[in-house]
Amino acid sequence: MKIDELTQVINQKLDEYLEISYPQKIFKSMKYTVMLPGKRLRPIMCVESARLFGGDIQDALPCACAIEMLHAQTLIHDDLPCMDNDDFRRGKLTNHKVFGEAVAVLAGDALLTFAPQIILKHSKHLGDEKLLKIMNEYFQAAGAYGVIAGQVMDLEAEKLYSPKQFYEADVDEKYTDQDKELLHFIHLHKTSDLFKLALRTGAIIGGADDEKLNVLTEFGEKMGIAFQIADDILDETATFEEIGKTSGKDKAAGKLTYVTLYGLEKAKKDLIDLIDECFKILDENNLKSEIFTMILNKIKNC
Amino acid sequence: MKIDELTQVINQKLDEYLEISYPQKIFKSMKYTVMLPGKRLRPIMCVESARLFGGDIQDALPCACAIEMLHAQTLIHDDLPCMDNDDFRRGKLTNHKVFGEAVAVLAGDALLTFAPQIILKHSKHLGDEKLLKIMNEYFQAAGAYGVIAGQVMDLEAEKLYSPKQFYEADVDEKYTDQDKELLHFIHLHKTSDLFKLALRTGAIIGGADDEKLNVLTEFGEKMGIAFQIADDILDETATFEEIGKTSGKDKAAGKLTYVTLYGLEKAKKDLIDLIDECFKILDENNLKSEIFTMILNKIKNC
Repeated sequence: MKIDELTQVINQKLDEYLEISYPQKIFKSMKYTVMLPGKRLRPIMCVESARLFGGDIQDALPCACAIEMLHAQTLIHDDLPCMDNDDFRRGKLTNHKVFGEAVAVLAGDALLTFAPQIILKHSKHLGDEKLLKIMNEYFQAAGAYGVIAGQVMDLEAEKLYSPKQFYEADVDEKYTDQDKELLHFIHLHKTSDLFKLALRTGAIIGGADDEKLNVLTEFGEKMGIAFQIADDILDETATFEEIGKTSGKDKAAGKLTYVTLYGLEKAKKDLIDLIDECFKILDENNLKSEIFTMILNKIKNC
Repeated sequence: MKIDELTQVINQKLDEYLEISYPQKIFKSMKYTVMLPGKRLRPIMCVESARLFGGDIQDALPCACAIEMLHAQTLIHDDLPCMDNDDFRRGKLTNHKVFGEAVAVLAGDALLTFAPQIILKHSKHLGDEKLLKIMNEYFQAAGAYGVIAGQVMDLEAEKLYSPKQFYEADVDEKYTDQDKELLHFIHLHKTSDLFKLALRTGAIIGGADDEKLNVLTEFGEKMGIAFQIADDILDETATFEEIGKTSGKDKAAGKLTYVTLYGLEKAKKDLIDLIDECFKILDENNLKSEIFTMILNKIKNC
């Protein structure tokens, strides 16, 4: 299946799974952010990973959609006034701007358990063992050892670096090795953890063994970091129209990003290196995927 | 095991499961609310339900503690400024007052997936089938069909009833049958759903069949409503010292409660009737439990 067709199938399934039940307000709020126009990168990665290991695309769709729902959950809560306080996401108003803060908090909460519920409801044929493996992967990625660890350290990092500190020093002077480790930790958890979840659960559905899962862990980590570097570059260089959210915000806030930490040139170089490493992993493990190739090139040419 | 001893065992397990990992801030925040002094009603109900159906207390502890964690999650998010905006809970500062709003949102999120993770990690011996049954029960109770449905309608109800409206009319004039249905829905989901979760998962661990699970659904629903009526009565009549949170708040806000809706006398009478019905269910199903008897009497004599 081509990437456009796959995106359409995923969108249809998301729409179907997120049927508006009572109380309508909460389901509408959940659905609003999930259905915002997006690249559906994570669900595509899950389905493609399943295919690469011999799985059926249809088998992977519930899990793929659940991961997109989890991703939407992180966006809803990250955008809240008490967090990043963003008004726009994917070119549209953020969830709390439309439904209010209270409902946005609850919609995020609801997605966190609705997503694995969708997996259990629609993937019974995978068998109990695979389902429990997928549940474990999901909880690990969604929780305090996963994306939340990344978000909480991101908030901590913001407190450490004031805009003043940022503008008054050169790149080299300002940051320590500890800062670099911190940023790596944030990127690994905020971004790579959901990539790994998508790749690993897809592979579990396909029937991959632990060795292959480890390969995907490495691939997902690198791809996630590359994606985050690209995102940081875009925040620095793109317009609102290009990225669908307020640009230059990180810089204005003196936020710890790959670009503020290493400078734009090194960020671009490291991005290319990481993408090359990703291609090498695919090659070495004989994983032939047009879709992964396309995604990697898209990240590279951000 | 006596109720005091059981409470102590549950507290020890909660403390053990919630080991402070990195990033410490998020784990400390999660643990803070979970470990607030509480009656541990839901975990006790889970363990006792397991015992009644032939299960081992030790087998039920991970699930029991997970349900207490889920309960704490709902408290953290319900107390947020954008929701009920409460400064005190169980006589202590609420989570966001100690850790800030952003961390409180994330701590709630983290508990939502940490709790089922604890079940999967520490209950492997239950077997895959029971584990998946428990997961399904957990997602149903925790999500948009469960406690969140209750909370979102509670927020909606608050908008419908201004303090002015409350104080300017008599009880009988003011509310319609629709209001009564709405309050019933709120109580069923905000309170009964976690009681049902505790009772049903305990029984699943013990090995109860679907018929018995249905009995527990009815028992949990009635017990939850009774508990909520008692809570509403206490909000009207008790002091801060007695309930560990700001009292009279519901009344001041003109909030839809059992007492504002039916008056104090009818609330007291309905509470007694519901508790009697709960005892009848236990009798008719030959469920002999000192612990349930004690809890029911405590709710009755609020």
